[in-house]
Amino acid sequence: MQVEHTVSDYDEDLRFLTQKISAMGGQAERMVERAIDALIRSDHKLAETVVADDIVLDNGQRDIDEKAVLVIVKRQPMAQDLREIIGAIRISADLERIGDLGKNIAKRVSVVTEYRQPVSFYRGLQALTDLALTQLKFVLDAYSTRSISQIEVVRDRDDQTDAKYTSLFRELLTYMMEDPRNITPCTHLLFCAKNLERIGDHATNIAETVYYISTGEQMPIERPKDDTSHEVTITKG
Amino acid sequence: MQVEHTVSDYDEDLRFLTQKISAMGGQAERMVERAIDALIRSDHKLAETVVADDIVLDNGQRDIDEKAVLVIVKRQPMAQDLREIIGAIRISADLERIGDLGKNIAKRVSVVTEYRQPVSFYRGLQALTDLALTQLKFVLDAYSTRSISQIEVVRDRDDQTDAKYTSLFRELLTYMMEDPRNITPCTHLLFCAKNLERIGDHATNIAETVYYISTGEQMPIERPKDDTSHEVTITKG
Repeated sequence: MQVEHTVSDYDEDLRFLTQKISAMGGQAERMVERAIDALIRSDHKLAETVVADDIVLDNGQRDIDEKAVLVIVKRQPMAQDLREIIGAIRISADLERIGDLGKNIAKRVSVVTEYRQPVSFYRGLQALTDLALTQLKFVLDAYSTRSISQIEVVRDRDDQTDAKYTSLFRELLTYMMEDPRNITPCTHLLFCAKNLERIGDHATNIAETVYYISTGEQMPIERPKDDTSHEVTITKG
Repeated sequence: MQVEHTVSDYDEDLRFLTQKISAMGGQAERMVERAIDALIRSDHKLAETVVADDIVLDNGQRDIDEKAVLVIVKRQPMAQDLREIIGAIRISADLERIGDLGKNIAKRVSVVTEYRQPVSFYRGLQALTDLALTQLKFVLDAYSTRSISQIEVVRDRDDQTDAKYTSLFRELLTYMMEDPRNITPCTHLLFCAKNLERIGDHATNIAETVYYISTGEQMPIERPKDDTSHEVTITKG
C-alpha cells in the first residue's frame, strides 16, 4: 500500500505540472489573440485586460519552477520523468515570455490608435498573428498528447511565419516612406510584428522540448531560427 | 575512499557547469561588444565573425542541459546543489539568447552601413551598449563569486538601461521624421537598440538566478521589467 500511495502522489505531482502548463498555454494564446484584437479594433479596455492578465503567467512559471524543484528533491526521478519535469520548466519559460510579448503589443494600442487606420491596414498583421497562433495551438496539442509524429512540421511553418514577418517589415517600411505621419504608428507596428515572429520562435522551442520529453534526444538538424528582415532596405522610388 | 572519490567526481561535475557558464558569459560579452563595434565602424568582416561565433553558445547551452540532467540522475542532489544545477540551466539559456541578440545586431551591419553615418550618430547606441555590458559583467562576477550583496543594484541599473533605450527610441524616430532616407537605417538601429535593452533584461534574469542559487528564495519585490518606449510618439514639428 505504501508504495502505491507514493506512486499515486508522484503521478499527481507530474499531473500538476502538465495541467499547469496547459492552463498557461491557454492563457498565453488568449493574451496574444486579445492584444491583436485590441490593436485592430482600438479597444483600450481590452488592451488593459491583457496587460493586467500577464501576472497570471508570471505566477504560473514561478509555481512550476518551485514544484519542479520540490518534485526532483522528493522523488529523485529517473529518465522520462525527469525529462517531463525539466521540460515543464522550459515550456513554462517560453509561455511566460509569450505572455510578455502579448502584453507588449497591448501596451502599444493607445499610441497606435492615435493614428487610426482602416482595418485593411492591419491585414498583414492579422495574417502573421494567425500563423503564430496556429503554431502555438499545434505545439500545445502536441504537448498534451505527447505526440511527436507531426512535430517536424512546426519548423516548416516557422519558416512561413518568418517569411510573412519579413514581407510585413517591408510593407510597413514602405508606408513610412510614403508619409512621415506613418512613422510613429508603423514603428510600433514593426515591434508588434517582431513580437509575433518571436512568438512563433517560442512555439518552435516548445516543439523541440516536446520532442526531447518524448525521445530523450535533441531534435535533429539545426533550424536556421531567423528571419531575413535584417536584409530589408527600402529606398524612395 | 569510495565516498571521497564520489564526492570529488561530484564536485567536478558541478565545476564543469560553473566553468562552462563562465566561458559562455565571456563569449556572450565578446559577441555583443564586437557586434556594436562592427556596426559603428562598418566592419563587415568582424560582423561575420560574430555571426559565425553564435554556434559556440548554442553548443554551450546544449552541453550544460545534457550535463545537468545527467548529474541530477546520477547524484540525486539536494537543496543547494540542485539549485546550482537548475541555475546553470537557466543562466545558460539567458546567455544563449544574449548571443542570438548579438548575432542579430551583427546581421544588420551590412544594411546599416549602406547608409553610413558619422560616428557621433551612434553615440546613444554606444552608451546603451556600455550600460548593458556593464550589467552583464556585473552579474557574471556575482555568479562566479556567488555574492549577492550588491545584487539589488542590478535592478536599479536596469531602469537606467530602459530609460536610455526609450530616449534612443525617441531620437531615432526624430531622425526618421527629419529625413526619409534615415527610415531604413534607423529602423534597423531601433531593433539593435531593442536588442541591447533585452540584453539588460537577461542580465537582470541572471541576477535573479544568482540570488535564487545562493538563498533558495525568489528575489523579493517584482521589478516592472519594462521600458516605456511603447508610449513614444513623435509628431512632425
